[in-house]
Amino acid sequence: MPNLDLTLLTDFYQLTMMQGYQHHHKADEVVVFDMFYRMNPSGSSFSIAAGLEQVADYIENLRFSEDDLTYLASLATFHEGFLDLLRNFRFSGDLYAVPEGSVVFPNEPILKVVAPICEAQLVETAILNIINHQSLIATKAARVKWAAEQDTVLEFGLRRAQGPDAGIYGARAAVIGGCGATSNVLAGKMFDIPVRGTHAHSWVMSFPSELDAFRAYADMYPDGCLLLVDTYDTLRSGVPNAIRVFDEMRAKGLPLVRYGIRLDSGDLAYLSKKARILLDEAGYKDAIISASSDLDEYLITDLKLQGAKITMWGVGTNLITSRDWPAFGGVYKLAATWDGNRYLPKMKISENPEKVTNPGNKRLLRIYDKRTGKIKADLIALWDEAYDEGRPLELFDPLNTWKRMHLAPHTYTIRDMHIPVFKDGRRVYHAPATQEIKHYCERELATLWDESRRLVNPQTVFVDLSEPLYNLKMDLIGRME
Amino acid sequence: MPNLDLTLLTDFYQLTMMQGYQHHHKADEVVVFDMFYRMNPSGSSFSIAAGLEQVADYIENLRFSEDDLTYLASLATFHEGFLDLLRNFRFSGDLYAVPEGSVVFPNEPILKVVAPICEAQLVETAILNIINHQSLIATKAARVKWAAEQDTVLEFGLRRAQGPDAGIYGARAAVIGGCGATSNVLAGKMFDIPVRGTHAHSWVMSFPSELDAFRAYADMYPDGCLLLVDTYDTLRSGVPNAIRVFDEMRAKGLPLVRYGIRLDSGDLAYLSKKARILLDEAGYKDAIISASSDLDEYLITDLKLQGAKITMWGVGTNLITSRDWPAFGGVYKLAATWDGNRYLPKMKISENPEKVTNPGNKRLLRIYDKRTGKIKADLIALWDEAYDEGRPLELFDPLNTWKRMHLAPHTYTIRDMHIPVFKDGRRVYHAPATQEIKHYCERELATLWDESRRLVNPQTVFVDLSEPLYNLKMDLIGRME
Repeated sequence: MPNLDLTLLTDFYQLTMMQGYQHHHKADEVVVFDMFYRMNPSGSSFSIAAGLEQVADYIENLRFSEDDLTYLASLATFHEGFLDLLRNFRFSGDLYAVPEGSVVFPNEPILKVVAPICEAQLVETAILNIINHQSLIATKAARVKWAAEQDTVLEFGLRRAQGPDAGIYGARAAVIGGCGATSNVLAGKMFDIPVRGTHAHSWVMSFPSELDAFRAYADMYPDGCLLLVDTYDTLRSGVPNAIRVFDEMRAKGLPLVRYGIRLDSGDLAYLSKKARILLDEAGYKDAIISASSDLDEYLITDLKLQGAKITMWGVGTNLITSRDWPAFGGVYKLAATWDGNRYLPKMKISENPEKVTNPGNKRLLRIYDKRTGKIKADLIALWDEAYDEGRPLELFDPLNTWKRMHLAPHTYTIRDMHIPVFKDGRRVYHAPATQEIKHYCERELATLWDESRRLVNPQTVFVDLSEPLYNLKMDLIGRME
Repeated sequence: MPNLDLTLLTDFYQLTMMQGYQHHHKADEVVVFDMFYRMNPSGSSFSIAAGLEQVADYIENLRFSEDDLTYLASLATFHEGFLDLLRNFRFSGDLYAVPEGSVVFPNEPILKVVAPICEAQLVETAILNIINHQSLIATKAARVKWAAEQDTVLEFGLRRAQGPDAGIYGARAAVIGGCGATSNVLAGKMFDIPVRGTHAHSWVMSFPSELDAFRAYADMYPDGCLLLVDTYDTLRSGVPNAIRVFDEMRAKGLPLVRYGIRLDSGDLAYLSKKARILLDEAGYKDAIISASSDLDEYLITDLKLQGAKITMWGVGTNLITSRDWPAFGGVYKLAATWDGNRYLPKMKISENPEKVTNPGNKRLLRIYDKRTGKIKADLIALWDEAYDEGRPLELFDPLNTWKRMHLAPHTYTIRDMHIPVFKDGRRVYHAPATQEIKHYCERELATLWDESRRLVNPQTVFVDLSEPLYNLKMDLIGRME
C-alpha cells in the first residue's frame, strides 16, 4: 500500500469543470459553497460533525506532483495551460465550519468554502468524503453510548471496516462520539486515544485446554485480566475455568483489578445473568462482564431491559459501518457568487421540494435557553445580518410559517457556530486533541433535551431561516417559475 | 493526513497474545489459520474475492519502526524482550488464497496462512479488513452489473464512501466486479483503470443561464459531451437546451460522438422515456441517456422493467457502501497446529451450530462440469488428499448427508483454487493488472448458472466436505461432548 498524497482524491468532473472555468476566464471568480445534509442517520434527531482536522490537513497539503500531472496529461483531456494552473495550485480561499464534535441538524451549513471557483470545486469531493464518513460514525457512537448509559463502550470494528481508513478514522470518530477506547492500535498511536483488548478464541485453542490458556493469560496479565469464556461452553466450561483462575490469583495474593470475563456468542442476557450468579457466589462481585457480538444501540437497550448483567460493551461491525445507515448524505452546493461588490445568491431548484437549497452567503446561529443551556433552535441567516440578545427574537418554521416562537430579551443566548479554518489560504485552525474533542462533544450532547436524544422517533430540533433569508429564497423561487 | 505505514493496523489483543505466546515459548509454533465467511452479501449465492494485492503489499511491508516501538512501550503493557521480537519482526510463513476476482462461496477457506503463531496472529486484522472490504464491493458491483445487463455501469461513490481508502479501494473492487470506469481520479491513477465524468449542477449555476453553461461545456468538450439536464427543469429546460446545443454542434459540422444527457433526479423511468422521444424527434437517436440518483441493482432492474431508456448507469452511495449489506463478515480461525510431525486439527465449537469451524490444514477444490464449464460444486478437503478426474467422484452435503451427487469419470474437471502468495516469507505472487483481474472475474461469473446469479433468492451452489474431512470433524465434535 503506497504512501498516499490525496490531491487526486477528487471526481474527474471537478477537473473537467476546472479546465472549463479556466477556458472561460472564470477560474478566479469567487464563490460560496455550503456543505449540509438532509437527513440524520439511523432516525436520530441530530448528528455529530467530525472530520474537520483531516479536512484541514488535506487542504493544507494540496499539491499536484509532477507524477500527478503526467498521469493527467495521459488522459488526453487536459491542455498544457490547465496543467500549469494545477502545477501552481494552492488553496487561497476561506473555509468556515462548526467545531468537531458539535451537535448539528439537517439543512444547515456545517462547512462553508469561500474561494475562487476552481479551488472550491476541486476540494468538494474530499471534503464530503471525510466529513460524511466521520460524522456518520461519530453520530452512531453517540447513539450506542446513549444506549449503554454509564457503561463503557469499546470500538472493536477494525476487521469489518470498509478498508484501512474506515477503521482508522472510524475509530477516531467513534471516540469523539462516545467510545471509551478502541482495539485499533494504529488509531491509538495516531490520535493518542486509549487502546484495549485481551485475547481471542485462538489463544484458548492454541493451548491443550481452556484452563491452561486462562492460566497462561492471567500469569502474563494479572492486571486487566478479562477472559473470553465462550470457546467451548460458556457456563459449563468457560466461567468455571475463569473462576478457578481467579481463585488461584487470589490464593497467590494478587490484587484482582479490572478483571472478569467476556461473552462473544450465545444469548447475552441469559448468559450474563447466569455468569453473574456464578461469579458472585464465588466472591467476585466486582468482576466485569463484558460482551461483544453483533451489538448496536437497539440490542444494548433491549439487553438492558431484560436485566443483562453486562457493564462493558465491545461494539464492532454495526458501529464501524453504521450498518443500518451506512452513508451520511452530506452534499456541497453552490450558494452564491461574488461579483466584486456583493454576493449574488444562487439556488438549485429540484423536482424534489426538500432538495431546494438555501441561497446566499450565510451564517449559522444557535439559540440557547439562557436558564437551562439547552438548544431552543438553530437559525440560518445571511452573513451580514446582526442579532442582539437584548432584543426580542421571533423564529418561524420555514415550511409551516405560522409556527412561530417568540423569545423575550435576555432569555436566550446566541452562538455563532462557524469557526474560521482557513483565511486567505492560510490555515488558522489548530485541531484540539481527539480526547478534547470527545469532551467537547459530551458537553454538546448535554445541550439537547432528552426527548431529542431518544433512539426511536425523537423530538425534532428546529432549524429556522431568518426573515431576510426566507424572503430571498421565496423571491428567487418566484422568479424562476 | 500523514503517510501511512500499516504495521500497527491491528487489534491490540493480537499484540497482547503475541507477547503471551513469546512468554510461554510458543511464538514459533507453526499454525494454520483459515479466512472464510458465512453469508454472501445482499442475498447473493456467491461472492467475488478481492483485495489480495493489497494484502500481499501489506505483509511484504510489515516493519515495526522505532516510532511504533516507542509508542507501544508507552502503553505500559509490553516488555523489552517482546519489543525486540517486534523490532526484528518479518513474516516468514506461507500464505495461499484464491485469485482475486474468483467466485467464492460461504464456509470455504478463501485464504490460508501457515506461519508461526505470532506472525499468523498479527496479520489477522488487516487481512480481514482488506479482504472483507474489497470482496464486499466487488460482489455488489457484480450484482449491479448483472442488473444493468449490457449497459455500462460507472462507479460514482467517492463522496459517500467511508473515508478515502473506502473510495480508493472501493473503486478498484467495483471495477473488478463489473464497473466500466470510476469518477475517482486517484483510483484511476493508482490502478490504471478508466476515469469518467462531465459536469455538476454547480457548472450550470455558475453561468448566467443553463444554455450558456451547456454551450460553454460543448465548446470545451465536443467529444464525450454529456450534459446534466436537471438543474432547473428537466423536460421544459434541460433537454430542450441540450438539443439546441447539439443542433449548434451539428451546424458547425462537429461529429457528435459519445454525447447525450444525464438525469440526476426525478422519476428516471418517466423522464428517460420523455427525453428519448425529444432526442429522437430532433434526430439524436444515438444520444446517450445516462442516469444517476440512488441507484442499485434493484432499482435498475425495476427501471428496465418499466422501459426506462437509460443505457449508462452512474452508481454511487449504494454501491460504494454496499448500503443494504455494508459488512462482509469474513472471519479468520485457527484450524490446525503443527507438532513437528503432523497437523493437529483445531476446531471452535459454538452455541450457534453454523459457527462450528472446519478443522485441519485444508485445500479448496472446485468441480466443473466438463461439457458446460459450469461449477458443479466446491469441495473442501484435507491438504494431503489426492483426487483423480479419471475416477468416479461422490459428493455429499455436510448437513444433509443423504443428499449425494455421483460424477462419472472424465465428466468433470477439478481445479485447485489456492494459489501461493508467500512461501517461507517470500512473496511469490505478482498481482495482475486490475483490468486483467476484471476480465478474469467476467470469466469466473460465466461459470455460474444463471439460476445462481438471480438477484433474489438464487439457487445455492454446493460446498461439500470430503469424506475424510467430514469424518475428522464429526470425530472431534464427538470427543468434545
